[in-house]
Amino acid sequence: MRRLRMAMIGGGPGSFIGPVHRIAAELDREIELVAGVFSSDPGRSRAAADIYRMDPARAYPDLTTMLSAERQRADAADFVAIVTPNHDHLPSARAALAAGFAVMSDKPMTATLEEAHALNAAVAAAGLPYALTYTYSGYPLVREARARVAAGTLGAVRKVVVEYPQGWLAGPATGKQAEWRVDPARAGAGGCIGDIGVHAFHLAEFVTGLKVTELLADLGTVVPGRLLDDDCSVLLRFEDVGFGAARGVLLASQIEVGELNGLSIRVYGEQGGLVWRQETPNELTLHHLDGRTEIVRAGTAALGPDAARRTRTPGGHPEGYLEAFANLYRDFAEVLRGGSAPLLPGAADGLRSMAFIDTAVRASASGTGWTALTV
Amino acid sequence: MRRLRMAMIGGGPGSFIGPVHRIAAELDREIELVAGVFSSDPGRSRAAADIYRMDPARAYPDLTTMLSAERQRADAADFVAIVTPNHDHLPSARAALAAGFAVMSDKPMTATLEEAHALNAAVAAAGLPYALTYTYSGYPLVREARARVAAGTLGAVRKVVVEYPQGWLAGPATGKQAEWRVDPARAGAGGCIGDIGVHAFHLAEFVTGLKVTELLADLGTVVPGRLLDDDCSVLLRFEDVGFGAARGVLLASQIEVGELNGLSIRVYGEQGGLVWRQETPNELTLHHLDGRTEIVRAGTAALGPDAARRTRTPGGHPEGYLEAFANLYRDFAEVLRGGSAPLLPGAADGLRSMAFIDTAVRASASGTGWTALTV
Amino acid sequence: MRRLRMAMIGGGPGSFIGPVHRIAAELDREIELVAGVFSSDPGRSRAAADIYRMDPARAYPDLTTMLSAERQRADAADFVAIVTPNHDHLPSARAALAAGFAVMSDKPMTATLEEAHALNAAVAAAGLPYALTYTYSGYPLVREARARVAAGTLGAVRKVVVEYPQGWLAGPATGKQAEWRVDPARAGAGGCIGDIGVHAFHLAEFVTGLKVTELLADLGTVVPGRLLDDDCSVLLRFEDVGFGAARGVLLASQIEVGELNGLSIRVYGEQGGLVWRQETPNELTLHHLDGRTEIVRAGTAALGPDAARRTRTPGGHPEGYLEAFANLYRDFAEVLRGGSAPLLPGAADGLRSMAFIDTAVRASASGTGWTALTV
Amino acid sequence: MRRLRMAMIGGGPGSFIGPVHRIAAELDREIELVAGVFSSDPGRSRAAADIYRMDPARAYPDLTTMLSAERQRADAADFVAIVTPNHDHLPSARAALAAGFAVMSDKPMTATLEEAHALNAAVAAAGLPYALTYTYSGYPLVREARARVAAGTLGAVRKVVVEYPQGWLAGPATGKQAEWRVDPARAGAGGCIGDIGVHAFHLAEFVTGLKVTELLADLGTVVPGRLLDDDCSVLLRFEDVGFGAARGVLLASQIEVGELNGLSIRVYGEQGGLVWRQETPNELTLHHLDGRTEIVRAGTAALGPDAARRTRTPGGHPEGYLEAFANLYRDFAEVLRGGSAPLLPGAADGLRSMAFIDTAVRASASGTGWTALTV
Repeated sequence: MRRLRMAMIGGGPGSFIGPVHRIAAELDREIELVAGVFSSDPGRSRAAADIYRMDPARAYPDLTTMLSAERQRADAADFVAIVTPNHDHLPSARAALAAGFAVMSDKPMTATLEEAHALNAAVAAAGLPYALTYTYSGYPLVREARARVAAGTLGAVRKVVVEYPQGWLAGPATGKQAEWRVDPARAGAGGCIGDIGVHAFHLAEFVTGLKVTELLADLGTVVPGRLLDDDCSVLLRFEDVGFGAARGVLLASQIEVGELNGLSIRVYGEQGGLVWRQETPNELTLHHLDGRTEIVRAGTAALGPDAARRTRTPGGHPEGYLEAFANLYRDFAEVLRGGSAPLLPGAADGLRSMAFIDTAVRASASGTGWTALTV
Repeated sequence: MRRLRMAMIGGGPGSFIGPVHRIAAELDREIELVAGVFSSDPGRSRAAADIYRMDPARAYPDLTTMLSAERQRADAADFVAIVTPNHDHLPSARAALAAGFAVMSDKPMTATLEEAHALNAAVAAAGLPYALTYTYSGYPLVREARARVAAGTLGAVRKVVVEYPQGWLAGPATGKQAEWRVDPARAGAGGCIGDIGVHAFHLAEFVTGLKVTELLADLGTVVPGRLLDDDCSVLLRFEDVGFGAARGVLLASQIEVGELNGLSIRVYGEQGGLVWRQETPNELTLHHLDGRTEIVRAGTAALGPDAARRTRTPGGHPEGYLEAFANLYRDFAEVLRGGSAPLLPGAADGLRSMAFIDTAVRASASGTGWTALTV
Repeated sequence: MRRLRMAMIGGGPGSFIGPVHRIAAELDREIELVAGVFSSDPGRSRAAADIYRMDPARAYPDLTTMLSAERQRADAADFVAIVTPNHDHLPSARAALAAGFAVMSDKPMTATLEEAHALNAAVAAAGLPYALTYTYSGYPLVREARARVAAGTLGAVRKVVVEYPQGWLAGPATGKQAEWRVDPARAGAGGCIGDIGVHAFHLAEFVTGLKVTELLADLGTVVPGRLLDDDCSVLLRFEDVGFGAARGVLLASQIEVGELNGLSIRVYGEQGGLVWRQETPNELTLHHLDGRTEIVRAGTAALGPDAARRTRTPGGHPEGYLEAFANLYRDFAEVLRGGSAPLLPGAADGLRSMAFIDTAVRASASGTGWTALTV
Repeated sequence: MRRLRMAMIGGGPGSFIGPVHRIAAELDREIELVAGVFSSDPGRSRAAADIYRMDPARAYPDLTTMLSAERQRADAADFVAIVTPNHDHLPSARAALAAGFAVMSDKPMTATLEEAHALNAAVAAAGLPYALTYTYSGYPLVREARARVAAGTLGAVRKVVVEYPQGWLAGPATGKQAEWRVDPARAGAGGCIGDIGVHAFHLAEFVTGLKVTELLADLGTVVPGRLLDDDCSVLLRFEDVGFGAARGVLLASQIEVGELNGLSIRVYGEQGGLVWRQETPNELTLHHLDGRTEIVRAGTAALGPDAARRTRTPGGHPEGYLEAFANLYRDFAEVLRGGSAPLLPGAADGLRSMAFIDTAVRASASGTGWTALTV
């Protein structure tokens, strides 16, 4: 069976996330990068062919050229990966879908909720696979956590605490990665809430299997002169599935000096609790009401089948961020080959996430009352 | 120099906190338990003399008897320790002060803010030492944290996250310890917020040296049939001392299954961050803006003088909760002997803490808008 | 029931272990310090009465005086605690026993194996309680570990790794605590091996319930000019109780810069493994052959009855070194009151420990061949 | 610049290490797998083409065929990767070198020391690049550790403790991975010592920059019926570079139930100490003589340039085993392109490692005296 072929949009010189998508896509040899528009600057796009050690003829100067050129090749790309800043997600995805290419997009779906609705419609109209890299849902132990909650290990969920502390934007935002994230024109209406808060939101819904129905938000801008939020506190209510509505707290910040990428989630139910931390991703703590505490470790027989299928090494050989990312591409490859990948985030997740950002921004602006999250 | 003499109010058979006060008071041999009214039931009070292996003649049937009897002894108690449920704190303290005894009270100061004002006035009128066991401020590394913030290590404080997860009230509240805590008549208007949220509040002000000026609270009652809150989320604003008002998040819960006593505090400023966790209390993490991370460990030369003075063993010999508690009694002994102990929580802390509980309860009841905290 | 009365030998100004014994003895109010010869210098001994806030009349100038004076009092001491350097353990214990006093001695039993035999005989002849503070066997989770091994949770024991790294003697030994430990005249033939290696040895036998039968030792002296070992590696063989002789490794060092008091023990059997670390003493890790890992935490229902009986606070309220030490005194008090305390280290443990030191020193001197450990 | 082309020997269906080499080689897109003899069974070799999604025409039936076929292609493989069991390393490497191919070999170099000398000579004669995947030397924080020692941060090295506990062979060895490792005909004279002890040995020399000069070994066979060692304790002496010979302890076991891949190294010098643990590989602990402890974390400015160059993600995005492995392939690619990679393990490391295994086996068999390690 041949490898699937990926064309990338974005990811040129200086990109962090472009190489991450490339590594993740190719990790399991299901997929190969073959083409790309790596930059809006044609010269920089061509230069990227060297970075990726690929055929320079397929490093295109612009998206239109790429899409039409690739369509005519016998060995055409099977899908495009979009790794540009947020404001470009909609136009690139729309064009790719219109040209008949499946799409794997970096999160968030788009820059605004309105755009997300438009893209959602385009995805539906195209009838093509569309997925989003909510990376943290690719970690095996996150999938284990989800499976344990779904199996009723915790009983009815009562409380969720999801935290995402970072510190790298505690000072003035300098450098390619920082600059676009603090620019409303490129990032959208949410700063920290859209960059990392949305990961926390997705993780909370992913692990619990519950939808957030309303929220209360306090989005702050701490660094002088910054235009978007960089420190966010959000209270959540989840849908009531018959045992009372679970409560939640979502904290995200980019000004907490010394915090690197400290995403964690804790879920508590009537019968138990669980804790997962991204920086030590290969273990999951499970508390039981009778006082027992278990550590479920990757690569051991304690792991359920879904999680086990997404590990590549024996226990004690740490897998990390790139491998979690690769699990999403493995899911996507299964979809492209006609299979299914029910855990892979898609347009519906993207739309909910954009609704979350939009609702949080509105709720905060309006004085932090409870605001419904609907989509 | 002789040992100071303590009379206890409360702490009879089945008490958790009575023996803790006794151990803490006597740990450094500055103080000796000599008398007590250990229960409102005279028989049980007498029985406690056995538990404490003390002179049964000084296990009194009621407070009035004890105060008058002790006043007449040459070897009279030097102070009383109040370890009863919250609703008794005011009457006992008032009576003791009126009889000329200094008071060490378990927290919170009283059951209601109104009572706290009354007691505050009584303390002022009596002119006698009065202190409160906000235990966690007795940990050496908490004092180190405070010293580092005060020294400017973090720069201007921007963000505080203080969390206090417990799980022991996730089911029906049974047993002596649980029952009074969930009974408004004995605990006051706050459940979890008054039992542990107030510790988190005190810790946040203690470490940062900043006052909370307003808050937004969402106090929930999760366990069916419970009358008081058992799961609390509070957003905080601190006073602006010239660099913008720091933001805070205070989480406290007693329904998070598997959490034991997971109090932690994280403080972030312009120049650094710090993390302290009560369950591993002998170390403090310090992050610096330049990317360095330090672990300050008890018993090493990295510890400042104030913290070092409150440790009893060399590094690597864990000290814990009882030793932290004992540090408050050591402070109190210094005050009783005419010295000073600026870090020992007193009536002002008690009043602020009661105002915190009262404000949080009101804010939550009124729909979670921002509410000023004044005292 | 009255408190038992303790007289201390040693523990004067500058002592670390004297105050530790005092705190530990008094922690549960079973025992009270009433008398002592705190120093071989009568003036310093008297000065200690102030430190301990006790009756100066009972701070005696020498041991003979104390023993005869105390014998004549109605409120005589019930036992003596010996907290002097090693070379004094034998004469003090012998004199106390001869005068009719039970003895609680700091470890090791004596300075030499020959002395230990002599003291063992004296204990037997006196028919009085004699115990040794092998502190680490007082930790609740160590007792839990022992109980789990005894219950067969691990199956037949195959392997033991016990490590005791410290770093405080990495440079020249200065200060009261360091000086006597590196002086053969006061410490005996073993330096690090006698000071901390012996704790590791006792812990290994305590947790496994197995006797070491032979060993191979490499005792090094790393710091230039030092006369005793400061870095020790010992291989162990345990008695064969029917499943093959378990193997062991014992590492102890005082020159590992940055290590504080890093005692740990790992035990592996056919069916499982366990890990305990002194610096995080309130949890025990249990591994099962089927891939499950459990964390047993103090203060939870997962704890067995023996361990639970030796904790004083609810889960999550850390207890540490002083509380572990106090558990030995609580055991001792039970013995003095006519009960039994099968886990309390006594003369047999002391003798084995001295045989360990002696065997290790001889084995190392003779070129690191396997040497039988007999007693 | 084109990708380098790799041909693999071994790594067919059921292989663990074959896919690891493939992922590692391709991770940075410097290298591409193009050919292979994946099994000694031609049918299985062909079947592997599917696993690797590669051209079935280049899945060869045997090594001779592959080497001659590849030599004649314009797009010939640039090197071979050998991932077979130990006994095949010599013949495969010799044949590949003779045919003009550079070699990347899985460790250990060969099955016996004699073979290693032969291969070493063959490498020298061929004048072609030859490297070995001592994986753990590829971790960025291990390279940081080496750099810190080399820079004198610890002062003169005095003590090394390297431990490698595993538990997966605690029962009967079943499955492809286990079976050859316990078979002397395929694994060589060392079991655990050759499988993982040798990693620990290499790591110790790599981090300290010091050669082991003699050792004392106790290799045990714990599981009944097993023919090779499965539990190893080795004492080490390092070369004296002017400050006295450092001492070392190397522990490796495969019968410690619950241990996954717990490799760790601790190095102590006159001025400091360091600790690194493979299961939490992205941080390095540094202790300083003045009592300060630092945590150096991947992705922060605290990391030196060599280590920083071998990370691919920002701080807090965990990298693990595959990424460390990929660092060795990145080094190897630099060598193949004419550059240098001084940290990449080569024939000299391989020879020393085989001498270590050989010496340890001989030393243990001869009764655990000190035995010189020479090469």
